[in-house]
Amino acid sequence: MKNDPTLLSQSRPNVLRWEAGRAESVRDELVVEEPLEIRVRGQAISVTMRTPGHDEELAAGFLLTENVIAASQDVLKITACERNEEGNLINVQLAPDVQVDFDQLTRHVFASSSCGLCGKASIDAISQHFSPVQSDVKFSPELITTFPERMRQHQATFNTTGGLHAAAIFDSNGKLLVLREDVGRHNAVDKVLGRCLLDRLLPLSQHLLLVSGRLSFEILQKALAGRVPIIAGVSAPSNLAVDFAHRNGQTLIGFLRGSRMNIYTHPHRLGLQT
Amino acid sequence: MKNDPTLLSQSRPNVLRWEAGRAESVRDELVVEEPLEIRVRGQAISVTMRTPGHDEELAAGFLLTENVIAASQDVLKITACERNEEGNLINVQLAPDVQVDFDQLTRHVFASSSCGLCGKASIDAISQHFSPVQSDVKFSPELITTFPERMRQHQATFNTTGGLHAAAIFDSNGKLLVLREDVGRHNAVDKVLGRCLLDRLLPLSQHLLLVSGRLSFEILQKALAGRVPIIAGVSAPSNLAVDFAHRNGQTLIGFLRGSRMNIYTHPHRLGLQT
Repeated sequence: MKNDPTLLSQSRPNVLRWEAGRAESVRDELVVEEPLEIRVRGQAISVTMRTPGHDEELAAGFLLTENVIAASQDVLKITACERNEEGNLINVQLAPDVQVDFDQLTRHVFASSSCGLCGKASIDAISQHFSPVQSDVKFSPELITTFPERMRQHQATFNTTGGLHAAAIFDSNGKLLVLREDVGRHNAVDKVLGRCLLDRLLPLSQHLLLVSGRLSFEILQKALAGRVPIIAGVSAPSNLAVDFAHRNGQTLIGFLRGSRMNIYTHPHRLGLQT
Repeated sequence: MKNDPTLLSQSRPNVLRWEAGRAESVRDELVVEEPLEIRVRGQAISVTMRTPGHDEELAAGFLLTENVIAASQDVLKITACERNEEGNLINVQLAPDVQVDFDQLTRHVFASSSCGLCGKASIDAISQHFSPVQSDVKFSPELITTFPERMRQHQATFNTTGGLHAAAIFDSNGKLLVLREDVGRHNAVDKVLGRCLLDRLLPLSQHLLLVSGRLSFEILQKALAGRVPIIAGVSAPSNLAVDFAHRNGQTLIGFLRGSRMNIYTHPHRLGLQT
């Protein structure tokens, strides 16, 4: 499965580039953003704005991180709807024994639940309750510092358009297993996890997830669904992300830049102590 | 209404800072991310992950950009629920004559609609159909190049935590009217528009919206709800954002950095021609 650059960006004429008083008309590349509807058993469960391409991975990863499926055998077939010319609808055919709680799924995906008398809009409403990760894997900090540059070298689109988020899975030998880009931070993570699920690589308990965007609670939760013990990002984590990583045994690394990083939780996997 | 830095970030002990083989334990600031449930007439219409603070602006801006309200008189009162200790529930009391189509709102907010026989997951499902913007305002490109630095100087939190998106409204004299930060790109825009609505500054037809995050379709649509004719960002626009701006008469500026910018649509407001 290769990246198809034509899906990720498209040429546009007639962009004015202005610099210090001079304007010139140039051609420009734009990232593509289109809605994708994911259907399960005839029901729409999500419409997300995404960068077209690898849609079956996005659908699989989405169902994994929403706690609907756990392994590749839960998926029989993923197909784009033939009658939908834009290719913006995808059907996921699940194995008959996969239970789908549509109400719960809708409640979580669309976060429309009101939780109790006084509307406790709590983390519970958007939590999936995966069990904490357990992994003895070790990554050296020196190896980890090489990952952002490796990710950038593999990014197909960023250098051209500057508009995509990336996510990548590395193993402890430093091998980059899969990298995906998307206009959405969450989508990029769903795509790499979906690819790994379809390739029967789960659980990713010996691996590291690197993301180019910020480290939010939801990214940590998605990583937990894939059983990833180490999550690293070039940007900042939020307080909830740190709390979540702490509680779920995940090693959380932020501000991974040059020869530096901040380790927020469980540094033992880097051979370090708090 | 002032920024309260204690709402935006909080201290944490025990972060390991690793650099070139040396690790030291340091204190660190984290951006705060918490869910907010917005309620209208007793119904939960949205749960969003946001940076606490300016919640009434976020609620007002959200209802504006979701096409539920159009002016400050549509809102009678916005109050945090007193029985919710975390402050993560907010009630918006609307004027009796404001019509709320909860089905349509839910369909859009949660994008759960399936559009027609073949699930045309189209832009229609997530479009609000505001009319195109009309404005003769002019901004000089030279003035616009000064805005990103002005925004950064006003940002309360970014320098400390590196984790927030910002949005700001400028007038054509270069005055910064309002700036807000949030972990969510959309929330930052909703907050500045909500502030302007509550201050009876709408329509913003003589103004410019500057955002620190990427220029997606949804940001352009939110700006259109506030009638903003010029939208600028330091990052890249998507193809849908360019299409949307073109169709709706909005001037779209991307890659606003140093003395440079790209003008994608309607450059006449900068005194330029394609």
